Amino acid sequence: MTTQSDNGAAPNRGALDADVIVVGGGLSGLQAARRLVAKGQRVIVLEARDQVGGRTKTVEVNGHRFDVGGQWTGPGQPRMYALIKELGLETTPTYAIGKRILDLRGRISTYSGMIPRVNPWTLIVAQIGIWKIDRLCAQVPKDNPWDCPRALEWDGMTALDWAKRNLRDESVIAMVNGAVRVIFGTDLANLSFLHFLHYLHSGGGFAKLIESHDGQQDSWVVGGAQQLCTGMVPLAGTVHTSAPVRKITQDSQGVSVVSDVGTFTAKRVVVTVPIALADRIQYEPPLPTMRDQMTQRCGMGATIKVLALYESSFWRDAGYSGESVSTDLGTITFDDTTPGGQAALLMFVTGSPARGWSERPAEERRRFVLDTLVRYFGEQARNPTHYLENDWAAEPFVLGAPIATFPPGTLSAFGPALRAPVGRIHWAGTETALDSTGFMEGALESGDRVAAEVLAAR
Amino acid sequence: MTTQSDNGAAPNRGALDADVIVVGGGLSGLQAARRLVAKGQRVIVLEARDQVGGRTKTVEVNGHRFDVGGQWTGPGQPRMYALIKELGLETTPTYAIGKRILDLRGRISTYSGMIPRVNPWTLIVAQIGIWKIDRLCAQVPKDNPWDCPRALEWDGMTALDWAKRNLRDESVIAMVNGAVRVIFGTDLANLSFLHFLHYLHSGGGFAKLIESHDGQQDSWVVGGAQQLCTGMVPLAGTVHTSAPVRKITQDSQGVSVVSDVGTFTAKRVVVTVPIALADRIQYEPPLPTMRDQMTQRCGMGATIKVLALYESSFWRDAGYSGESVSTDLGTITFDDTTPGGQAALLMFVTGSPARGWSERPAEERRRFVLDTLVRYFGEQARNPTHYLENDWAAEPFVLGAPIATFPPGTLSAFGPALRAPVGRIHWAGTETALDSTGFMEGALESGDRVAAEVLAAR
Repeated sequence: MTTQSDNGAAPNRGALDADVIVVGGGLSGLQAARRLVAKGQRVIVLEARDQVGGRTKTVEVNGHRFDVGGQWTGPGQPRMYALIKELGLETTPTYAIGKRILDLRGRISTYSGMIPRVNPWTLIVAQIGIWKIDRLCAQVPKDNPWDCPRALEWDGMTALDWAKRNLRDESVIAMVNGAVRVIFGTDLANLSFLHFLHYLHSGGGFAKLIESHDGQQDSWVVGGAQQLCTGMVPLAGTVHTSAPVRKITQDSQGVSVVSDVGTFTAKRVVVTVPIALADRIQYEPPLPTMRDQMTQRCGMGATIKVLALYESSFWRDAGYSGESVSTDLGTITFDDTTPGGQAALLMFVTGSPARGWSERPAEERRRFVLDTLVRYFGEQARNPTHYLENDWAAEPFVLGAPIATFPPGTLSAFGPALRAPVGRIHWAGTETALDSTGFMEGALESGDRVAAEVLAAR
Repeated sequence: MTTQSDNGAAPNRGALDADVIVVGGGLSGLQAARRLVAKGQRVIVLEARDQVGGRTKTVEVNGHRFDVGGQWTGPGQPRMYALIKELGLETTPTYAIGKRILDLRGRISTYSGMIPRVNPWTLIVAQIGIWKIDRLCAQVPKDNPWDCPRALEWDGMTALDWAKRNLRDESVIAMVNGAVRVIFGTDLANLSFLHFLHYLHSGGGFAKLIESHDGQQDSWVVGGAQQLCTGMVPLAGTVHTSAPVRKITQDSQGVSVVSDVGTFTAKRVVVTVPIALADRIQYEPPLPTMRDQMTQRCGMGATIKVLALYESSFWRDAGYSGESVSTDLGTITFDDTTPGGQAALLMFVTGSPARGWSERPAEERRRFVLDTLVRYFGEQARNPTHYLENDWAAEPFVLGAPIATFPPGTLSAFGPALRAPVGRIHWAGTETALDSTGFMEGALESGDRVAAEVLAAR
């Protein structure tokens, strides 16, 4: 055996390394850091991976850049548009010309505009369902959903339970579950109905969350969304990568943060990583049980983003927009052709069909994806020039995507611990946002909020 | 900043410290260790706390010993009785002579035997409910509950949902919720109905789980259940305490386990700690996503055990057994007077009323407990000679009690990862048991199973 030194020692009071340490170099962490730096604070950002980005990640293929993580923005996201402008970046609208595909329990239909060509009864029930959901959403406060009069009732049931009793029609439930998999990375069966309603309210309602034009998938950042993070780095103080944080110690004088590249001291620390990752940091003294019990429960969703590059955007020639959604496969596709002209389709595999993805044989995964694209867009989809998958659940310093799941009974019981500072520890991340929680906009909002919180606490 | 050495280095092949390292010195870990030692294996046990015991803990007050953790055993627990006998220990029956108290939504009634004196309609509905539940339980396989034909349906709803639709009567639901808080440390709202049924099936049915005489609370170990753990230590190889495990690295040659007292190498490692604690160990390479996503979700229940010692067992004189259960307060009490004659009442505070217990003022907590005891047993309960609380959620190396909660959609999706070894890493703990899962018996069963698994894998 070898002996290990104590690496969580109390901070050296005389020479704190910084005023604030930010754990996590994603959008929320870097936004917080630059806000604090702008106010004269000395800031250290500790990012676990070898690059900043959080749940954004841009890859380059043949000189073209693609997002394999967070990508879109849309109306109602003022911080995103401000940051894009500030960094001199541009957006391009999501390609949405032509027919869309709905794969409803194995039956493929095409449609233009927003209304799928399916059984009119299904459409009516679906529309009534969306209307019901949006009406209930409005009753759930964005800031403190646990204060909603029906919080206990809604948090005591799964979203599936509600759907079964209120939507009834199997096809409609399948459609809603398909949308939920994309939005949450998990199934109706896993979600607290209160969390479901709160999330939808925060994002502007059900329709807006699933729409491209004028919705949350309206447009995307040319050159990739990870640039939003890399672009903030020069403004964010000292940024260390490959620096996963293992332990946070606090006392009345300050904090000491143990990372793989060393131990840093500061007056305060901001933890911006996903809840399930924050759960894996050791805290000394231990966190209050309400916070601890919450972080034991909020697992990340499962989402794989797949890119298939082609010689040409052949689906456009056939009159397809590239958009498809399947109720049963957990897939959704978009045209991801770059402004530079590299033809591409992207597919999300989401929710239960995405679980354990990386443990399955690569050939089986690829066949599933390409078979599905062929079914929707024809035989030309069979042979991409380049094929690429990103399984977020297999990223050890992210743990899943797009967001954390609050299972039944969690938000109403432990929700107040989501943002409540614990002494010198402050919490951020898109899950803590009031508006557009779960989106890049929410991450930026949480960065702004936590920076103000830290400044006020000094 | 200070620099930290790499303490997760690959094992020195020439001189492994042991054949098997066992993480966790509770009943499952020590049972596994002694089974392996008996087969000639060199075993190291690493226990995070300064004493072995897991979810058992015995304290001494005025020369009398009391369990503030796992305490009872009953029929259908062969391993418990065998171990008790082997260690030369004795059991004593739970005191159950006299009136019991039911606090049904604030209305106190007393009864003898098993049938509370409440509205006959409530009794009938409750009995039908228990019969329904026990009938459904039998359909959930103990080994692989996810194989049950209705697994997806039952895992897609909370136990509360089922209760609301099938028990209907508010008083009956409150009674079932009261029992569930004691059994699971959480509320009907938090539980997957599949997990609920599986757990009850494993424990012998609803009635058996809540009963003292002939049930899971039939009798207890004189001198304390922690003796079961301390008694196994001499048979369990080398046991290190104050040795929390931070990291497990494996490759084709063996494992390397980083703890606070040093790094140890072996051929295989057995992880027996609660799922939520296993989630906080760093694994290299990372675990399969199915296992990782499961451990992100299975938080521990909340249970506080309170002891109030008195000059005499005054409740016995007044004809009370000391047993009470409240539907709304989350409390249950028992007579805990020692065979040596130290009078004591014990109270569990369980489920949602137990959450955040340690963060509330000590005086408020004590007042709540004693006010409740006074309501049930009279003014003499007001002034105990000794008062003691143990909040399991506040134990950083346990995280809660009695067991892990599987929220909806978790057991059916990720359940197969519960026991599946990951290379050289094997999993035990009472949550992995087939019979009496969640009980001390289940912990012992899992120790036996994992020891056999490790021996077979060599």
